[in-house]
Amino acid sequence: MADRVTPGVVAGAPSRHDPAAHGFASDNYAGAHPQILEAIAAANGGHVTSYGDDPYTAAAHEVFRSHFGPHAQVFFVFNGTGANVVSLQSMTSRWDAVICAETAHINTDECGAPEKIAGLKLLAISTPDGKLTPELVDQQAWGWGNEHRAQPRVVSITQSTELGTLYSVDEIAALSAHAHARGMVVHLDGARIANAAAALDLPLRAFTTDAGVDCVSFGGTKNGLMYGEAVVVLNPDAVRGVEFVRKAAMQLSSKMRFVGAQFERLLGADLWLRNARHSNAMAARLAAAIRDVPGLRVTQPVQANAVFAVLPREVCARLQERFHFYVWNEQTGEARWMCSFDTTEANVDEFAEAIVKEMAAR
Amino acid sequence: MADRVTPGVVAGAPSRHDPAAHGFASDNYAGAHPQILEAIAAANGGHVTSYGDDPYTAAAHEVFRSHFGPHAQVFFVFNGTGANVVSLQSMTSRWDAVICAETAHINTDECGAPEKIAGLKLLAISTPDGKLTPELVDQQAWGWGNEHRAQPRVVSITQSTELGTLYSVDEIAALSAHAHARGMVVHLDGARIANAAAALDLPLRAFTTDAGVDCVSFGGTKNGLMYGEAVVVLNPDAVRGVEFVRKAAMQLSSKMRFVGAQFERLLGADLWLRNARHSNAMAARLAAAIRDVPGLRVTQPVQANAVFAVLPREVCARLQERFHFYVWNEQTGEARWMCSFDTTEANVDEFAEAIVKEMAAR
Amino acid sequence: MADRVTPGVVAGAPSRHDPAAHGFASDNYAGAHPQILEAIAAANGGHVTSYGDDPYTAAAHEVFRSHFGPHAQVFFVFNGTGANVVSLQSMTSRWDAVICAETAHINTDECGAPEKIAGLKLLAISTPDGKLTPELVDQQAWGWGNEHRAQPRVVSITQSTELGTLYSVDEIAALSAHAHARGMVVHLDGARIANAAAALDLPLRAFTTDAGVDCVSFGGTKNGLMYGEAVVVLNPDAVRGVEFVRKAAMQLSSKMRFVGAQFERLLGADLWLRNARHSNAMAARLAAAIRDVPGLRVTQPVQANAVFAVLPREVCARLQERFHFYVWNEQTGEARWMCSFDTTEANVDEFAEAIVKEMAAR
Amino acid sequence: MADRVTPGVVAGAPSRHDPAAHGFASDNYAGAHPQILEAIAAANGGHVTSYGDDPYTAAAHEVFRSHFGPHAQVFFVFNGTGANVVSLQSMTSRWDAVICAETAHINTDECGAPEKIAGLKLLAISTPDGKLTPELVDQQAWGWGNEHRAQPRVVSITQSTELGTLYSVDEIAALSAHAHARGMVVHLDGARIANAAAALDLPLRAFTTDAGVDCVSFGGTKNGLMYGEAVVVLNPDAVRGVEFVRKAAMQLSSKMRFVGAQFERLLGADLWLRNARHSNAMAARLAAAIRDVPGLRVTQPVQANAVFAVLPREVCARLQERFHFYVWNEQTGEARWMCSFDTTEANVDEFAEAIVKEMAAR
Repeated sequence: MADRVTPGVVAGAPSRHDPAAHGFASDNYAGAHPQILEAIAAANGGHVTSYGDDPYTAAAHEVFRSHFGPHAQVFFVFNGTGANVVSLQSMTSRWDAVICAETAHINTDECGAPEKIAGLKLLAISTPDGKLTPELVDQQAWGWGNEHRAQPRVVSITQSTELGTLYSVDEIAALSAHAHARGMVVHLDGARIANAAAALDLPLRAFTTDAGVDCVSFGGTKNGLMYGEAVVVLNPDAVRGVEFVRKAAMQLSSKMRFVGAQFERLLGADLWLRNARHSNAMAARLAAAIRDVPGLRVTQPVQANAVFAVLPREVCARLQERFHFYVWNEQTGEARWMCSFDTTEANVDEFAEAIVKEMAAR
Repeated sequence: MADRVTPGVVAGAPSRHDPAAHGFASDNYAGAHPQILEAIAAANGGHVTSYGDDPYTAAAHEVFRSHFGPHAQVFFVFNGTGANVVSLQSMTSRWDAVICAETAHINTDECGAPEKIAGLKLLAISTPDGKLTPELVDQQAWGWGNEHRAQPRVVSITQSTELGTLYSVDEIAALSAHAHARGMVVHLDGARIANAAAALDLPLRAFTTDAGVDCVSFGGTKNGLMYGEAVVVLNPDAVRGVEFVRKAAMQLSSKMRFVGAQFERLLGADLWLRNARHSNAMAARLAAAIRDVPGLRVTQPVQANAVFAVLPREVCARLQERFHFYVWNEQTGEARWMCSFDTTEANVDEFAEAIVKEMAAR
Repeated sequence: MADRVTPGVVAGAPSRHDPAAHGFASDNYAGAHPQILEAIAAANGGHVTSYGDDPYTAAAHEVFRSHFGPHAQVFFVFNGTGANVVSLQSMTSRWDAVICAETAHINTDECGAPEKIAGLKLLAISTPDGKLTPELVDQQAWGWGNEHRAQPRVVSITQSTELGTLYSVDEIAALSAHAHARGMVVHLDGARIANAAAALDLPLRAFTTDAGVDCVSFGGTKNGLMYGEAVVVLNPDAVRGVEFVRKAAMQLSSKMRFVGAQFERLLGADLWLRNARHSNAMAARLAAAIRDVPGLRVTQPVQANAVFAVLPREVCARLQERFHFYVWNEQTGEARWMCSFDTTEANVDEFAEAIVKEMAAR
Repeated sequence: MADRVTPGVVAGAPSRHDPAAHGFASDNYAGAHPQILEAIAAANGGHVTSYGDDPYTAAAHEVFRSHFGPHAQVFFVFNGTGANVVSLQSMTSRWDAVICAETAHINTDECGAPEKIAGLKLLAISTPDGKLTPELVDQQAWGWGNEHRAQPRVVSITQSTELGTLYSVDEIAALSAHAHARGMVVHLDGARIANAAAALDLPLRAFTTDAGVDCVSFGGTKNGLMYGEAVVVLNPDAVRGVEFVRKAAMQLSSKMRFVGAQFERLLGADLWLRNARHSNAMAARLAAAIRDVPGLRVTQPVQANAVFAVLPREVCARLQERFHFYVWNEQTGEARWMCSFDTTEANVDEFAEAIVKEMAAR
């Protein structure tokens, strides 16, 4: 992360927070990567056409196509919920349903937006690790033609998952083939898709376009943008009216050039990959440091930038006095620790030491 | 606009457009004010809590309360359609309707978002100048208790209007009193509220809080922000569940600090007012320069930052070859010319001269 | 109406109303035609498959095809709002809009159901007589491809109209051709379609199937049924997923046989036509009797079963003490008088005499 | 069922089915009870006010209050999905969620109407017997005030359940207390509420009003009506705007007198109870006759009018050639056998004999 520099604070612009503060609560607690601010500044000044007909948006679209293939269609939106709901709404008719894991962000963290905005029924399936399989999908993949049942139309998976786990290319390809054989299409919630690519050490298209995925919610914010996500349509036959859906869903940015400029910078070279590799490495470093602590149990494979662990509640509470993080499951006491592009080795080591110490002191 | 400086373009961040280009198409064609970029940079780095629980958002809320009164509640959103739909949804029950002018942005330019996202029926009223009056409102303000009729609940006005006109304080106060007496509440679409304050030469609260308005969509983007608008609740009794509505409407930003930092800078001192005064002045300058050109007719009072004029179609077409602007009404040939915070006197003079010359040459 | 007999009231089943009472408030104030009760009774007993897979529904579908052509698809629903919303929802995508007259039932009397249930934007157009024309349609038929505008997709007309007026075959054909040429489809709200056929003295298909209409809301209730309407799809390419839309719209009847049996009886022979001719004739009789009364003005052509008239408010009020009817327009004092299948000549004459007398007495 | 007589078929009204046919597919396969037809006939003729302002609707409301208490508010609707969606929509704000069993009709058989019409998120919980408990409710009853989570607001139970099981009074009272203590309200889907009352041998209010239930979907159709259900509000503070919700949900009948007349007859004396006791008795008779057949397993307590059993697929298939019924679970081969008000002892005995014979022959 050699290129991570603190931009000079201009006179009269007070900083209201401690820029040295780093926690493990969420990759959304980080700010924007300095290069992203540079790209924004470079796109500023003068007039360009609003709502996406500008050279930055065009260039960013081209960069996306270099990653996902020449037929990819890109629609920038504001945030992850927007990307998911616009994707799913474009992939469905009014009477359709979406099969997903119970832990899917669309099911748990979007205040019911898929239901409330798009009228979608979510057919949520319990999983051990946040990952669907063809067998699990079949629990809900039935009833087509029966007017009493919302029609299963989309299989939505998250890569990397909300539990920090990964689908392999083969697993995604199998799910896509299974879905397509039943007349369904596949959506991939890629809020942390960069972490997945880094962890798999594969190009983005290897586990999306080439694995049969029809539409991706591409996450920029957690990977170092200030704001901005993208609906990336890989199979144009799988969607309808994306541009209208985006506008009606209040996800069309007027000064779109700033979203385009951010994405061009993120994806044009390897910034996205370096950010992702770094946050993954920090999670691995943390897991390695605490995995063998007696009384603490890492509950999920640490494959991306998240560490999930069960530890005694009183230890958890004491750690939370000094470090920001969330208890994922109040019933089991499972904690979630997220690393981001700007988490440092020192941040990790300090936190790991605190964990070791508090565990020993109980 | 002495403080408008071009931020240094960092090496490796190519500018893809001509920063000298300025047109009259939309105040959305402008970029962000340089001070806004400074504020964003100052807020970057380190970790702060996401989704609004951060010091920049808190400071911006405080600044809003200094303008609108200590009871104002502020909810940042991404864009103007978002601000309008979140406001209206929070002000209504499922069976309600919204009275507005036919020219209202919510009625004409949001792809049906109020209907599609919030299920609202818009009771649109024809007006000569984009402004409602109590008499006009009464065309649709009836039928309460009749289950066959969507219940009129909100009167929504735009200030300054989509036609560049202004409500006086008395006009808004009369509308509010009229609405409240009938059990309705008042929403003000303030996508260009700063232009209105500048034109009226009044504090923001004079024609909102103090005039009985219940909820405002506060526009930042057209006033010089990169992105970001606000739902400003002036009467808490007029809304329900704004925070949930905002999230389900996909308008909750994760890295909210950047929205807060922009608004704090915009409204903390007088940047908002200088920007608005400047764009208003440029529109006045343009109107003055072309008002008496034979064959051209300025169709609306030029009270904010817009000039509407009917001119011969062939003149219009020739002008559009050199300057960006929109034909507002294809049937009448009426053009709309918008000025923004970064429109220069030279821009205006060049355009006015071109109009005069083309009109003379026909 | 020789076949109109009062069914014997069975012992123990008290009648709670005066079966001799007849007003002019609405064709919904009437009960069911006695033949309809007979058909219901004949369909009762034993078990048949629910939700429409029964011989009565099948027979009724066949009867509909005899009227509308062999390709017509029929979907029974409960009521007129249901027929309209299911039709329009099946004809549109999520981002579409519907062009209609301001007086259309979908715009004025359905509590916003098209907006609230289907998310449709209604583009309502002011008309003198409740009838659209190609020129009027063009006020709203524009903006396709512009993502900021809900996309005009359906032209919805009412036949006979809410003002008791009629479209000619040529008028409907011209509207259909106009709509189709612009990529739109045509919906006909036929809550009183039987009255239109009777007035035009034409088969139902002459002004629907053969005039280019794509989908009809067929009204049974106002024509003498107990309950039940039908979505009649004339152009299968104009709709999608009607069976799912109907179920999700809560319009799928379980004991469908009773709807089918009613419609088979209504449309199998000429009951529908006799009912419609009779109610039309009663309206004509009423209009003839009062048309020349000084101080009273019949405001619309009396072409179906409605008479609209402006008369002094105090006369109106005195008449309402003895006869049920509605003031249509509170501002002008216009009254609406509806005739139904069971309105008798004596009813009309009594009412007309009262009008004449009250007008003379003022 | 001594009062079950076949109404005389009027000349010219052909019966298209075998009135002796009786199956075990659904209580919706039955027709209307003859007394219901009588009540309809008695309400026919003459004019009464539409949309519910008529003496039959008023009388029926009074009868409902005699069962549920003087404060009950009654809103008639067309069908069960309508009753459920109108109830739930009236009990919730736009951001709310509904806790229910995975097997709930609202979750499995309404084509997503709660999501698509009301925007509700269903928080479905796996149960062994279709019944929620306070402990099960707690799996989803959390997260109030967290804007990322649709807010749990309603606990919806079904009585008798979709699996033919029953809640005791104490179980419902415990659920109500649990829900109320957490700021939630209780909805009871009573599509078969009469069967529950008969099975519990208790008045309707004992396990609804008196057990803390806030709103009931009262089922008429499965209990012998032609059509018609009711939203019965027991706690007026738990709902908002029911009359508007009903209209916008397309559930307001114009000729409401016929719904009122049916319900008055059903509930005014003991017709509802006799019908329910009879269908329950027939289910018990069937269960008793086949319970001990080797190789067949009755899977749920037979407490109302349903029998669930697992039997060999080939036996099931052969039985279905002669008798109408549904396989409930394709994976386990579980069949569902429903009895209705017109199922006879002979019907049951014939079916039971066939089961015994086919099981023996395999």
